[in-house]
Amino acid sequence: MAAAGLDALLVSDPANLYYLTGYQAWSFYTPQLLFVPAEGELLLVTREMDARGATRTTWLPIEQILGYPEELVHVPDRHPFDWLASELRRRGLVAPARVGIEADAHFFSPKAFLALEKGFGEWELTDSQELVNWVRAIKSDAEIATMRTAARVTTRAMQAAIDTIGVGVPQHVVAAEIMRAQVLGDADAWGDFPAIVPLLPTGAAADTPHLTWSDQRFVAGDAVVVELAGAHRRYHVPLARTVMLGEPSAELRRTETAVAEGLSAVLETIRAGVRMVEVADAWNAVLARYGIEKRSRLGYSIGVGYPPDWGERTMSIRASDPTVLTENMTFHVICGMWMTGYGYEVSESIRVTADGVETFTDFPRALISKG
Amino acid sequence: MAAAGLDALLVSDPANLYYLTGYQAWSFYTPQLLFVPAEGELLLVTREMDARGATRTTWLPIEQILGYPEELVHVPDRHPFDWLASELRRRGLVAPARVGIEADAHFFSPKAFLALEKGFGEWELTDSQELVNWVRAIKSDAEIATMRTAARVTTRAMQAAIDTIGVGVPQHVVAAEIMRAQVLGDADAWGDFPAIVPLLPTGAAADTPHLTWSDQRFVAGDAVVVELAGAHRRYHVPLARTVMLGEPSAELRRTETAVAEGLSAVLETIRAGVRMVEVADAWNAVLARYGIEKRSRLGYSIGVGYPPDWGERTMSIRASDPTVLTENMTFHVICGMWMTGYGYEVSESIRVTADGVETFTDFPRALISKG
Repeated sequence: MAAAGLDALLVSDPANLYYLTGYQAWSFYTPQLLFVPAEGELLLVTREMDARGATRTTWLPIEQILGYPEELVHVPDRHPFDWLASELRRRGLVAPARVGIEADAHFFSPKAFLALEKGFGEWELTDSQELVNWVRAIKSDAEIATMRTAARVTTRAMQAAIDTIGVGVPQHVVAAEIMRAQVLGDADAWGDFPAIVPLLPTGAAADTPHLTWSDQRFVAGDAVVVELAGAHRRYHVPLARTVMLGEPSAELRRTETAVAEGLSAVLETIRAGVRMVEVADAWNAVLARYGIEKRSRLGYSIGVGYPPDWGERTMSIRASDPTVLTENMTFHVICGMWMTGYGYEVSESIRVTADGVETFTDFPRALISKG
Repeated sequence: MAAAGLDALLVSDPANLYYLTGYQAWSFYTPQLLFVPAEGELLLVTREMDARGATRTTWLPIEQILGYPEELVHVPDRHPFDWLASELRRRGLVAPARVGIEADAHFFSPKAFLALEKGFGEWELTDSQELVNWVRAIKSDAEIATMRTAARVTTRAMQAAIDTIGVGVPQHVVAAEIMRAQVLGDADAWGDFPAIVPLLPTGAAADTPHLTWSDQRFVAGDAVVVELAGAHRRYHVPLARTVMLGEPSAELRRTETAVAEGLSAVLETIRAGVRMVEVADAWNAVLARYGIEKRSRLGYSIGVGYPPDWGERTMSIRASDPTVLTENMTFHVICGMWMTGYGYEVSESIRVTADGVETFTDFPRALISKG
């Protein structure tokens, strides 16, 4: 904040609230905010209903939690942050200052932003440019340990998917067994709710990566992409694999070979000190040899996640990203190939180490043949 | 739109996108928009990756779907809507106009709003005040039929919760079985992903209504609140019940009695033509006789939902709401009592009829005793 010239920060992203205070509840459908002054006490602002029990998850004392009145929930003419402006003014906390907002955070609406602009005329509001997300980029050992626990959930969930997928099985039945496994987890590695539901792009519809399930049945010849994450205490470890029902086409086999080689090249390139462009180049060089191009990014930073995204919205694996890799950065390296008529995905969630990578799961990487 | 003096509308809420176009995918973590001119063709704008297969769910022809370049995803210095401004300009669609935005929609960020302001100088952007949400308030018969299907999912999910909850059972095991049942559904009533995960506020922690699960085990004497929804084709039917492990306290029994009487009074009051204040009054009168006060609203309009909310953000059941009830409005009437040391909830999802209510489920309403 000092480097960015910020006197205070208004944090809205539920993942950032959790990271900074431990606050965790499904309360982000109504406005909430953490006031982080450069000097002074944090203040967590939620709906009154949620403020009361917030100390069950956050380390903040009850005196630093403000609940706005229930009658401000979903009314057209007033915003909870109008109330906040009076409340902070009453506490003498509103003086001329340069205050960061999370201008691109999920659940921070233009209406909320305009209420802040109106209520806090003394403040120069400026985009914090994902400041807290960037602080989250390099994980502590405790965070890495939590991600290793999440990875155990991931493995169980992927195994449940593979065990269930088959010719004639409806998509939603597979989704049901994945979700059960995602929450049951693996003994003490209990599963927290993942930020994204299981995605199962299949056959020709695999050109639509974010399609969710229906009761449509898998048929012989389908290549079923499974993209899911295990989560533990809000930390995510995503994983993608492809299950083939019957014999793969020559084209799919060729894609698999290219992607396997490309992913290996990427994992061999990643280590602390390497620039992201080198990682992207390693991938693109292999794909070019096979005459394949992938326009979307090859992955993104992961860690704490809330719906609708388990990515951190900071670093992306692509040539234009200026990042220099640092030990304990964590990424989902996802080779998502959305081809005409079929799709193929394989991914690894990884930690950057001093001399290479740690993959969080050790799930076999090849195309999985069933039935 | 004519009544609101709008020449066009920019729709961001995924539920509104679905309602207007059928578009459905887990793509709302990157910016998306539906351009709705008063005269002319709709244009759906998503990330390139999602645009390609969007015709799998929307009735819009591919010519009316624009995909913005992948390199605009999660970059600090450009926004996809900068690109949109050039693109609409190139198509001759940008002339002076009064254009509605969904200023309080989830997933429409201040950064997106500021990009629109900068890119579309000719447009006077004005808050549409949930215009599409209000259009959704009164359901068609087809929508009601879909909600009845969702109700079958709800019943299965609630039964799974009750079957699983017991002394010594960890919370996440109950959540896992609920989520499996929510997706398996009931024969052809397959379960879509609900907008909110199962909530299980328990014992003293029931003062925290939106707390999610951990691996903590239920103990004798716990009153376990179960709040969940069944969903079918994005339509939701939520339901809450309370399970008692052992003997309820006299205080909980008294709350149950008061709430049962209050809920009955509410359901007897609701019918087409009644004002919302009458509904709220019926509830408050009963509670007052028991010396209980509930400050939060007693319910809200339901229908299509996306994470993080299955409510429609329009009507609330409270004295200050100016709504006159109309046939085929649908509500979740939720008597959530977050008392000191325990919580109690019972709810019904209902349709307003000409002469009363239809409850979507017929789950027994009393406190459920187990072990």
